[in-house]
Amino acid sequence: MAATPSPVEAAVDDPAPRRTGYRRLPVQQRREQLIAVALELFAARPPEDVSLDDVAEAAGASRPLVYRYFAGGKQQLYEAALRSAASELTSRFTVAAFTGTPTEQLGAVLHRYFAFVDEHAAGYGALLRGGSVVETARTSAIVDDVRRAAIRRTLRHLGVREAGPRLTLLVRSWISVVEASAISWLDEGRQIPVDSLCAWLVDQFVVMAAATAVHDGQTAEVMGQWLRLETEDSPAGVLLARLRDIGRG
Amino acid sequence: MAATPSPVEAAVDDPAPRRTGYRRLPVQQRREQLIAVALELFAARPPEDVSLDDVAEAAGASRPLVYRYFAGGKQQLYEAALRSAASELTSRFTVAAFTGTPTEQLGAVLHRYFAFVDEHAAGYGALLRGGSVVETARTSAIVDDVRRAAIRRTLRHLGVREAGPRLTLLVRSWISVVEASAISWLDEGRQIPVDSLCAWLVDQFVVMAAATAVHDGQTAEVMGQWLRLETEDSPAGVLLARLRDIGRG
Repeated sequence: MAATPSPVEAAVDDPAPRRTGYRRLPVQQRREQLIAVALELFAARPPEDVSLDDVAEAAGASRPLVYRYFAGGKQQLYEAALRSAASELTSRFTVAAFTGTPTEQLGAVLHRYFAFVDEHAAGYGALLRGGSVVETARTSAIVDDVRRAAIRRTLRHLGVREAGPRLTLLVRSWISVVEASAISWLDEGRQIPVDSLCAWLVDQFVVMAAATAVHDGQTAEVMGQWLRLETEDSPAGVLLARLRDIGRG
Repeated sequence: MAATPSPVEAAVDDPAPRRTGYRRLPVQQRREQLIAVALELFAARPPEDVSLDDVAEAAGASRPLVYRYFAGGKQQLYEAALRSAASELTSRFTVAAFTGTPTEQLGAVLHRYFAFVDEHAAGYGALLRGGSVVETARTSAIVDDVRRAAIRRTLRHLGVREAGPRLTLLVRSWISVVEASAISWLDEGRQIPVDSLCAWLVDQFVVMAAATAVHDGQTAEVMGQWLRLETEDSPAGVLLARLRDIGRG
């Protein structure tokens, strides 16, 4: 297997053109194209149903050319695609324009998350369900990084610098609810509309935080600050009014 | 590699005794002993730090003897130990004596679950975190079976025969919270006392159900039936009283 070509050695990916009909692309561009094509295939089919030949064919490249860029074969290509997907997903955690109440912002981030899940259904499902043939300590570490970024981002969103064990537990648990509901949503044929699912997840955050605030001063303080920013018709406002009714019943 | 000896061919595991000092055990007993010893080692150390020699030594057996029972080596022994652990954990989901309110019973089951997590910390953590060297589609299927049993058991506990998509989502999500908090609890050096953690998880179930009931008739009905069985000083009673205070604040 050939080593990855350096930009100096090979400014284009096939310096000795043959009559193959394949397009010649600059090195970095070809690399990115192969990753993008692989990502699309892994998003649509479970990893065990995607071969290196599929990637080569979809990229309009030869199998040896794909190996030239990814000497580790399918596993290396999968990990590169996963890293690219992870970085795309992580970028969605940041709310560009900070408008709306905290729960409205949380809803906006969840919509972006579920758009990603929807676009990468097969890959997301295979990875999060575990036991996939391409799963290794490295792929788990990539998934963990995304999870950690989600936890950090949520805490920052709440204005928390240093989270105690219970606030950490709350946020980790809620992130696991987001993941479990994404998997459940895919498994059950996307029966629940995305809007409704995102609204449910925002509500879950509110009540999980409320039940944690009962046990924990830090969570109570953070939640108090954040509830002051909510309006009566924001998700948190509407939910708390309804829960008061259930509590009375 | 030798095939697993049949009970007829070998009533004891070493029919030609040599001067090894190893104890001779009947076949089934030896098999169970090897699994028990492996389970103990995998419970205390991550799978990559347990060798077949460790198992043989701890069992007072030779390496070839272990291979005779587990021709697939460490992976097969790991899977047998995992199956044994899974069946033990699943058995804890059943409440023997149905005393107490539904949330009190839920608390009792959670205590048994966390006793298991505590006893099998290394193995539980390695498996649930994912990416372990011994993880395969088969081990993931075993974990999934336990998860499915937990979901079924929780629904039966709630008196539900056929759960709609939102009630299913609620229970799956809560089970993921239990798993995430077990991992978080281990990662953070078991800072939160078990009693307190179990109480928190019961509270999480109550509020997650309440927030789901707002969106879903079936959940509202199930929750209504179940709340009628709760007393003022049961976990659900205490929590709902406190939440009314937060709602007012």
